[in-house]
Amino acid sequence: MKKFAVILCGCGHLDGSEIHEATMTLLAIDKQDCTYTCFVPDLDQVQVMNHYICEVMDEKRNMLVEAARIARGDVHPISEYNPAAFDALMLPGGFGVAKNLFTYAFDGRDAKVNPDVERAIKDTYALKKPIGALCIAPVLVAKVLGNITITVGSDPATIADVEAMGATHIITQQTEVIADKQNMVFSTPCYMLPATIADIAESAGNLVASILENII
Amino acid sequence: MKKFAVILCGCGHLDGSEIHEATMTLLAIDKQDCTYTCFVPDLDQVQVMNHYICEVMDEKRNMLVEAARIARGDVHPISEYNPAAFDALMLPGGFGVAKNLFTYAFDGRDAKVNPDVERAIKDTYALKKPIGALCIAPVLVAKVLGNITITVGSDPATIADVEAMGATHIITQQTEVIADKQNMVFSTPCYMLPATIADIAESAGNLVASILENII
Repeated sequence: MKKFAVILCGCGHLDGSEIHEATMTLLAIDKQDCTYTCFVPDLDQVQVMNHYICEVMDEKRNMLVEAARIARGDVHPISEYNPAAFDALMLPGGFGVAKNLFTYAFDGRDAKVNPDVERAIKDTYALKKPIGALCIAPVLVAKVLGNITITVGSDPATIADVEAMGATHIITQQTEVIADKQNMVFSTPCYMLPATIADIAESAGNLVASILENII
Repeated sequence: MKKFAVILCGCGHLDGSEIHEATMTLLAIDKQDCTYTCFVPDLDQVQVMNHYICEVMDEKRNMLVEAARIARGDVHPISEYNPAAFDALMLPGGFGVAKNLFTYAFDGRDAKVNPDVERAIKDTYALKKPIGALCIAPVLVAKVLGNITITVGSDPATIADVEAMGATHIITQQTEVIADKQNMVFSTPCYMLPATIADIAESAGNLVASILENII
């Protein structure tokens, strides 16, 4: 029974973790007879967005507290993540990833990465353990690791950014996984391409399956 | 392609819709080549709960605005629900259902039902269209319709309450569906029994399949 760590950053695609990608990742892990533990920065979200009218709200919400909605309370501060205790690290997407986990939404290719998230990715990579990234999250992994091969949909500006970060980009079909076995980085486009929730479930399932095939 | 209406009431099991049950319901509908439209009361949640430490927070949140996180913005005020335009009505669970959609969490078997929700259930029933209810939501349907057959897990106090409301209760295994074909009410216990997220996906899939088999 392999153990997956999952990094979340709130609850909702405009200011936190994309809920479909997060829940379908947890579902894929559970369906493939593995366990998950969710880790979240114990910090306020950069923004709180009204998801009905798509506008910024004058509120403060904590990423860990909000992500607990997705994980039914069972979340842990990311400072406690120890890659030696897990077999793989998963990063669901959402625009909140590009606001909270690194500043890509505001700073593009010059984005700054949350130090705990940077450490989590680097330490997992150093142990040659798989990192699975959905949607926009592969950009975060590219920002931290540089010379890896990923997919992040088909938007030319985003592709140019990840290439500027040193990564190689491959355009895929929805639900496909790009497996960079040399670097143990696995990515799938999810809502970076047109998708329904069933596509997200299939993508997350394929991602977890690809990782399990490649765990040393 | 059958059309499902789904009633949500926020985003998070302690004060709104249970996220796994809501997303797995949407997934089941989409996987079985049907469409969904989400309806939500445009009212403040009765409570806002910190899902990390399980305590009430001194905040106000609107059910429609928060449920938009689950549905990626595509939610509608429940006052706009017209059962003639849909083939079935779905009610995912969550403790928030028993706080926001009716007052069962506070008033037990004497619970008051939100008038729009009561109308939605009664009008759907009157058209002999299926109602699918997960987790605690079958109690709400029993409160509105009375003499129906449902499952709501195995808690003796909850069973006594639905029986006092006029319903017949059947204890099932996790992921099973109780199909009351006479009344077109379909229920499954989900998190009212011990469950993992994969169980919820299977339960929701079975519920949608059972409904599709019985749509006239």
